[in-house]
This record gives sequence, structure tokens and C-alpha cells, in this order.
Amino acid sequence: MTDAAIEPFDAVDLIRAKRDRRELTTDEISWLVDAYTRGYVADEQMSAMTMAIFLNGMGRREIRDMTMAMIASGERMDFSGLGKPTSDKHSTGGVGDKITLPLMPLVATFGVAVPQLSGRGLGHTGGTLDKLESIPGWRADLTNDEMFAQLRDVGGVICAAGAGLAPADKKLYALRDITGTVEAIPLIASSIMSKKIAEGTGALVLDVKFGSGAFLQDIERSRELARTMVELGEDAGVATSALITNMNVPLGLTIGNANEVRESVEVLAGGGPADVRELTVELAREMLALAGRDGDGDDVEAALDDGRAMDTWRRSIVAQGGDPDAPLPVSREQHVVTADRDGVLVAQEALPFGIAAWRLGAGRARKEDPVHHAAGIDLHAKPGDAVRAGQPLFTLHADEPARFERALAAVEGAWRIGDEGDPIDDGGPLIADRIGR
Amino acid sequence: MTDAAIEPFDAVDLIRAKRDRRELTTDEISWLVDAYTRGYVADEQMSAMTMAIFLNGMGRREIRDMTMAMIASGERMDFSGLGKPTSDKHSTGGVGDKITLPLMPLVATFGVAVPQLSGRGLGHTGGTLDKLESIPGWRADLTNDEMFAQLRDVGGVICAAGAGLAPADKKLYALRDITGTVEAIPLIASSIMSKKIAEGTGALVLDVKFGSGAFLQDIERSRELARTMVELGEDAGVATSALITNMNVPLGLTIGNANEVRESVEVLAGGGPADVRELTVELAREMLALAGRDGDGDDVEAALDDGRAMDTWRRSIVAQGGDPDAPLPVSREQHVVTADRDGVLVAQEALPFGIAAWRLGAGRARKEDPVHHAAGIDLHAKPGDAVRAGQPLFTLHADEPARFERALAAVEGAWRIGDEGDPIDDGGPLIADRIGR
Repeated sequence: MTDAAIEPFDAVDLIRAKRDRRELTTDEISWLVDAYTRGYVADEQMSAMTMAIFLNGMGRREIRDMTMAMIASGERMDFSGLGKPTSDKHSTGGVGDKITLPLMPLVATFGVAVPQLSGRGLGHTGGTLDKLESIPGWRADLTNDEMFAQLRDVGGVICAAGAGLAPADKKLYALRDITGTVEAIPLIASSIMSKKIAEGTGALVLDVKFGSGAFLQDIERSRELARTMVELGEDAGVATSALITNMNVPLGLTIGNANEVRESVEVLAGGGPADVRELTVELAREMLALAGRDGDGDDVEAALDDGRAMDTWRRSIVAQGGDPDAPLPVSREQHVVTADRDGVLVAQEALPFGIAAWRLGAGRARKEDPVHHAAGIDLHAKPGDAVRAGQPLFTLHADEPARFERALAAVEGAWRIGDEGDPIDDGGPLIADRIGR
Repeated sequence: MTDAAIEPFDAVDLIRAKRDRRELTTDEISWLVDAYTRGYVADEQMSAMTMAIFLNGMGRREIRDMTMAMIASGERMDFSGLGKPTSDKHSTGGVGDKITLPLMPLVATFGVAVPQLSGRGLGHTGGTLDKLESIPGWRADLTNDEMFAQLRDVGGVICAAGAGLAPADKKLYALRDITGTVEAIPLIASSIMSKKIAEGTGALVLDVKFGSGAFLQDIERSRELARTMVELGEDAGVATSALITNMNVPLGLTIGNANEVRESVEVLAGGGPADVRELTVELAREMLALAGRDGDGDDVEAALDDGRAMDTWRRSIVAQGGDPDAPLPVSREQHVVTADRDGVLVAQEALPFGIAAWRLGAGRARKEDPVHHAAGIDLHAKPGDAVRAGQPLFTLHADEPARFERALAAVEGAWRIGDEGDPIDDGGPLIADRIGR
């Protein structure tokens, strides 16, 4: 009820519409995102809107309109000049999830360009850039020209998304983070897909996690998120599929930054924990298939075992100023937790271990905080492994011993030794489902 | 998930709790309101919370906690030193609702003090202070001492609520106004009752309106709001009841500011439209009964007819610097709408006439706008009245003729002339229900 006649819509009218379960039109969504980006719609209005979206949902067409409006708020990248297909991966985030590190060079080895724009971590899930910054000299910030040149010359790049890509999403994500509206499927889907579509990749594989250490714990909600994102990708002309993967247990044997790089290099050397290798291989096959390279799928494991993927990795690190042979940082303090009896490790919950690593300094509480690259947790046993009394179960790493107490409190009750034959509490197989054409 | 250890709660945790339909504890609500008042909880966080409250509701205990927390955010007034009972009225607002003007002096005439703290209008419902400011010299802003003295000497006062009363509510109401969360019953109830309880009145009658021109259109929601507020009042030791009244048709024959003062004075002179007199009398009886003066109820109509109430009115205007005999402002421009046929006026919808008066300048679009005191609408017929072709139906008043077009657009289709015997579309009797002990 204002006289303002210049703007075609009124923010309060649109909030009330969504509050009362009415669908927003394409024009309304387009205006809302644009007006919010330029500051005409205030943060407090947008947060009321996102809570209304959280509780009342959005239809498929509304989510698509939201995604397209966020893309339209910034620049769109274009890799058609590369002369080769592009394929990218996005994970919804988990504890010990370092898959991007071995995956990028593995796929790039097959002549499919991997333009992996990544973020930094907040809370208990780590950030890919934080991990790579453990490598002396490596830098995350590249110009578009540097990125293009590395995709052409090395075949793959992991770097920070520039500020020009979907600025509406950046502003909205920061708002959702402080207003309790992160976990809404329409908002998650449009946030992720606006960045990935604006990034200009031709194919996209989504690693949508479920379980205690994931963004969405319930597998059905993870499936719904995956379906929503696959539809958004296909609608925008990006060949898209999703794997639904288990995040009840930490991925691999390391949670942190430098230690996750170390484990990634083991996988690139043909070794590493079975789960990290399995997920890397399956995601690589998906990325290659979506890029039209079905025939290369059988060769993926060989490329890890014979050093081809490692070679691409080393060249990509060098291209971004890093020294792949430099020693990685090690922690000043360690604390080892041992088994108190003989038996079988039957539980190791992802979320508490993620929170413990975060409290050790591997993650940040506020955007402006630094991470401690050597902080984190090395696991010495995984669920299903036989253990003996006195055997080390896991080692905490930190730069200050004062951090151990709160980290130990986080993992209290999060692991359990049972008897041979007890059920293993790991939430089932690593890859639970695949969604896509 | 921050390390901030000084605050006992985290705003995001509380937003997520209400979002997920968990009840907030007394301590959580108390902290939230306090932290919002001092700016630790941000506007965008509180707006997400209010939307979650809007959509997921609050239990009776939560609403009481919210009310008490808002009272605790500021000062509480105390009229126990007056040596006489106090009784107040609050209306949820409607079109042509000037009842406070004749009601305050009428009740005060019986020795019951009426500390009527009022507000200014926003949108299509007018504000009591805006109406009274039509009277040359009259001022709304009194100190607490001036207010106390006037209650002692004149017996009643209508003035602006000081900034010290429930500041949390003031901040929250301004936020709700721009974020589409005004109409939530827990928020309306706690907003109204926190101010009324902090004001220190011993008894309170609520005029809760339903119908097209009311805050809540549906009578069942109005009943729910009334029950909620009556419970809040009784829980806080304030004798409280509510009348559920009809706001499908404008109240009386005037909508505006100066013209509503004129009509109020007619009622105080024993005349005026039947509906305005009826509601004034019934509310006065409620206010007197709740203040323990049941015996005076029969004398109320006489106090209007014999000039006692008018005398109190004149003394209250003088006490606040006004001249009760000064001519009230008249509009520079008038536009008369006449009947296009013989028949019976069968419809006159409150909301469109309220919006028209607002567009004529009687109300404000933004808090900082002035109102035009002479702007508004005089009605010459009410639903049920027989009319003849060419007879004036209503007159628009404005200071600029350019305002007539948009006002006429607002009332297009909002009144209708039918034939004798057609049903009258007025939503039933004026007083639909009473809630309270």
C-alpha cells in the first residue's frame, strides 16, 4: 500500500503471497532476485521470504525461475572455445570429503576439461580450497584468463569462484546462513545449480550425501534434492546426473586439510582407502559418460594405477604456483585415542568426528577466521575392522593442546567397539542410488 | 556453531527450533526479545523468526512469555496512586472507528480513570491521534507527570505512548510491517497486550473487529485473537473482556480525521449515528463493569444525553492545549457521488471506502508522511436506507482534486443500490459476540 510507482512489484505483497501458499510468477521471482541484489528489497524482507519458502515450498517452475534469476544477476562463463567437452562435479558436503582432489586430475587425464569452481568451508564440512591451500605456494584465486589457459594446457582446474558469478546467490547464501533457512530444498537446489550453470560446464555430476554427517540426513530428502537439481540441469541444457552417497561414516581415514591432501595423493598413486578410491572412480565414470566418453570408463582405474592421473595432478598444482613435492604442514600437538578392549569397531559417526576436527582448528566458525592446515583427525580403523585393546583408534592433531578437550567431548559416544558378529552401524553401502538419464 | 560463549543462546538455533515446530522455552523467548532490543539479534534474524511464528504458531505459554518479555524491555506505568480504578479500551482498528473519542470522556465521567495510550494510523485504518490533531492546539505528546495529573483532574486522557513503553514491541512491529508478518495471532496479541499491560491499566476491554475492513476478516480468527488476548490480560492480573464487532461496513457516517471528530462531538451531544452511539455505550458499560462499576451501566446513555460526557470531553481537550470551540479544518475540494436510480442501498464495503479515504490524504503511506486533516469521506446513506435517483450517496473531501480519481477507483463496485426487499449485505449485527468472564 505505498505510492511507489517505479517498481513493478512490492516486496511485502510477494512475501504475503508465498506466506499464503500462492505460487510466485516468473516476473515476480525475476524482480525479487534483481531487487534484492541491488538492495531495494531489504535483508529482513528477503529472510522472511526465505523462511516462507522453507516452510511452504516452491514448485518446479518457481525453482527454475529462481535459478535463472540468480544466474542473470551476474556473468556467465563460456568454455566452448576450448574445443573439448567439459564436465564438473559438485558435492553437497561431508566429513572427510576430499574426492574433488583426486577426481579433477583423473577426469582431466581423459581429455575432458574439469572447471571445478570451489568454496571454503564453514562449520563441520571442510572446504576444497582450504585443503589445497595446505600445499605451499598454491593459490586459489585465478583470473578467468588463467583458468581458461589451465583448462586448455593442463585439462583441469580447482579454483575460487569469482565474485561475478551469481552474486545474488552469494548474498542470499550469507543471509540464509544466519537466519536458519539453509536446508530448504528449493533454496539449496537453486543456489548450487545457479553457480554450476553460470560456470558454463557442459556436464555435471552431483554427489548428494545423506546420513548424520550430511546437509540433509534423510535419504528421501537427499533423493528429492538430487531429482530437483538434475531437472534444473537438464532444463538448462547441462547433462546432469546424481549419485546418492552415504555420509554416516567419515569418508576415508583423514578429516582435516593437509592430511586430506596426503590421502588424496595416495589415491592418485593407486592406493588410499577403499571408499575414497571407489567414490572417485564411480564419479569419474559418471563425469566421463555425461561428457560423451562412455568408452573411457573401463580405463579409469588404470589411470590411477599407472600414474597418468598423478601426472595431471602435479601439473595442475604447479600451474597454480604450488610445489607438489614440498612437505605438507604437520601439527605441533597430537593426542591418540586407543581401544579399551578387544573386539570390532561397530560405529564411527560422521557428524561428531566432523565437529571434533572443526574444533581442533580444521574449520572456521566465522568467514573471516583462518583454518589451521595441520589440524584434524587421522582415523586408524574403520567400522568393521577388528581392534585389540591398546591399539590406536584415531589421532587428534592441533596446534594448541587446549583444543583437545572440546574435540574429545564431541566424539564422546560417537564410536563403539562391539563383538565379532555384531551389526555394523555404518548406514549401508557407500553408493545408495543413482538419479539421472 | 560459533565459539561466542557470552550469550546463553544462539539466534539461529532458536529460529531453527521454531521453524521445526519445537516450542521455545521461557528463557529462550526472554533472551530473544532482549537480544533483539539491544541489537544483538539482527533484524533479518528476527524477521525469519516472525515468519516461522506466523506459519507454525505459538502455544499459550509461549505467547505469554513473549508478552512478558516485551513488557520487560521497557518501563511499566503505575496508576495505583490515583485512588480510583482504571479502565482502558483497545480496538484492532477499522474504517471510521472513532469510538475512543466519545468513549474516553463518557467512562471518565463515572470516576473511572481512562489512560488511553494511542497510536497514529498506517494504511487504511485511521489513528486516534491523527483524528484529535485536527483540533487546533491539541497535542498528543504528554510527559508521564502530565498524564498522571490529567487522569487525576479530568479523569481521562488520550495521548501518545511514550518511547519507554515496550520498546521491543515498537521495534518488532516496524519490522513485521515491512516483512508481511503483521496478521499472526501470537504476534498481534503479544504486541497489543504488552503495551496495555505495561501501561498499567486495571481493566481492559478489547474491540476485536472482523469483516472486510478489519485486520482479520474471518470472525473465527477474530474470536481466537480475542480469546488469546483475554487470557493474556487475565494471566497478568488485568480484568479483560472483548467484544467481537462487525467491520464489514464503515462505522458511522464519517471516514477521515476532522469529520470523525465532528461526528464524535455529535455523539457526545446525545446525537450521532446509531451504530457509533451503540458501540460507544456498550464498550462504556464493559469498561465500567470490569472496573467494578456495574451499577453505573444504566446511567451511561443519560450521561451522553445530559451533557456530562461532553463536559469531560471539553475539559480533556483544553487540558491538552486544544480549543474545543475552534472551527475544525474543512477541505478545499469536494466531489459528490449520487444515486443513479431509486432503490435501497444494499452494500457499502468498509475496506474500499477505507482505502479511498486513505488515498484522499486522510492516512499515510509512510510513517514520516503528514495526514491531511480535512481529507476523507462523508457518507449520506447507510446500507438499508432508501435512496432516490440524484440523491447524494457520499462526498469525497481532499485538498487536491487530483486525488479524486484514485479514490473513486477504490470504491468502484463497493456500493450497490438494489430493490426493496433485497438482502442487505452488511455482515449481520454490529456486536456479534462477547468474550470474557
